[in-house]
Amino acid sequence: MKRIKLIVAYDGTHYHGWQIQHNAHTIEAELNQAISQLFQTQIKVVGASRTDTGVHAYGNVAIFDVEIEWEISKIAYALNQILPEDIRIQKSEEVDKEWHPRYCKSRKTYEYHIWSSKIAMPTKRYYSYQVKKTLNIEKMKKACQYFIGEYDFKSFRASKSDVEHTIRTIYSCEIYENQEEIIIEVCGNGFLYNMVRIMVGTILKVGEGEIQPEEIKDIIQAKDRKRAGKTVPPQGLFLKTYEFE
Amino acid sequence: MKRIKLIVAYDGTHYHGWQIQHNAHTIEAELNQAISQLFQTQIKVVGASRTDTGVHAYGNVAIFDVEIEWEISKIAYALNQILPEDIRIQKSEEVDKEWHPRYCKSRKTYEYHIWSSKIAMPTKRYYSYQVKKTLNIEKMKKACQYFIGEYDFKSFRASKSDVEHTIRTIYSCEIYENQEEIIIEVCGNGFLYNMVRIMVGTILKVGEGEIQPEEIKDIIQAKDRKRAGKTVPPQGLFLKTYEFE
Repeated sequence: MKRIKLIVAYDGTHYHGWQIQHNAHTIEAELNQAISQLFQTQIKVVGASRTDTGVHAYGNVAIFDVEIEWEISKIAYALNQILPEDIRIQKSEEVDKEWHPRYCKSRKTYEYHIWSSKIAMPTKRYYSYQVKKTLNIEKMKKACQYFIGEYDFKSFRASKSDVEHTIRTIYSCEIYENQEEIIIEVCGNGFLYNMVRIMVGTILKVGEGEIQPEEIKDIIQAKDRKRAGKTVPPQGLFLKTYEFE
Repeated sequence: MKRIKLIVAYDGTHYHGWQIQHNAHTIEAELNQAISQLFQTQIKVVGASRTDTGVHAYGNVAIFDVEIEWEISKIAYALNQILPEDIRIQKSEEVDKEWHPRYCKSRKTYEYHIWSSKIAMPTKRYYSYQVKKTLNIEKMKKACQYFIGEYDFKSFRASKSDVEHTIRTIYSCEIYENQEEIIIEVCGNGFLYNMVRIMVGTILKVGEGEIQPEEIKDIIQAKDRKRAGKTVPPQGLFLKTYEFE
């Protein structure tokens, strides 16, 4: 038995997220079906990150165990012949039999894409969040700096979430501009439920002039979801990379 | 009667191009239907550029005539309430009653998006053309320069096209890079059928090392479609702007 690690990219537009559900079209279900078909036996993957409906990924990670003789790197190619074209395996490799993505130290990087314009752009509608108000990018960049470090991010998690440990470390939080497109890139050792989308909602409050960049500090300290900005919609979110130590 | 000019953006993925056809889903048909519904009378638009199946636009142009009392700039908003979300009117304005986009001097700018990577990116599949071979961007930039000027572009038109006058002026041809994404932007006073897509196919031959940049000169002079590169697929093409003198 070998443990295989897959790097998985997908367009989340037509999926009810990663996690398998009864009567719903999910990334996990598609992967299980394609892998089971390839190896002619029931196989289930374990995903590193359960992305929500409409969220995209360049590099999510999944593992599965299989008896296999052939070259592991070829699995990616073989699966791509079976999978729908909105899911692509970027890489397949063997990992240690004990290795598990959820039980090892990792760095996750997300991108959030904003379409900053009064005018909607049809080709971006599934891949960005349109913000019509004029944004002060310099202030947003300042706001980003206040997230860097180890903090209790209770203010930045969905209120329905009940995870106990809410301390996370953010390594970087940067803003890139390309004409009307603004990308907020954030890297950390882990994220609470909806954390990136609430961070972006709060950074946008700064950009729209509702709050000052330095108020991010107070919002983190308050440990109160109500103090942070709204949860921005899922289609702007991309899980970019998932790296392990 | 007033003549109205619309600036139209669309995601061409789910359309059989611009031009109305029997039993096919087209941009022109959607516009005619929405405008006729808005004004409660049969109205037909005239489009500036008939884009092909799968081609996108940020700024195509259409005109129509209507008896109207209300503010012309509001037509854009009103039509966007009726149109599907993959077609958005960016602007509506009144133009001279005699004005016609096909009979006046214009500058058209196209972008062609290339996804330059061995690895497919699901979120780009409808908006770029994947090229797996490594590209020499510097050589491609040199090749672009040979297109600038007034030439007979017979080598760069679809062989089935029978338009008589094949002389066009290219004002600029530039390449922009953003990680794996390469954008070729070309601006001219007009383009022959499939001309941008054949130009890109030829620039890619340079990028892949099959021909040298300076050979573009000979290919133009040959006035022979067979000398140019292949017609790259439509989904990478965006009609960016359509400006009139």
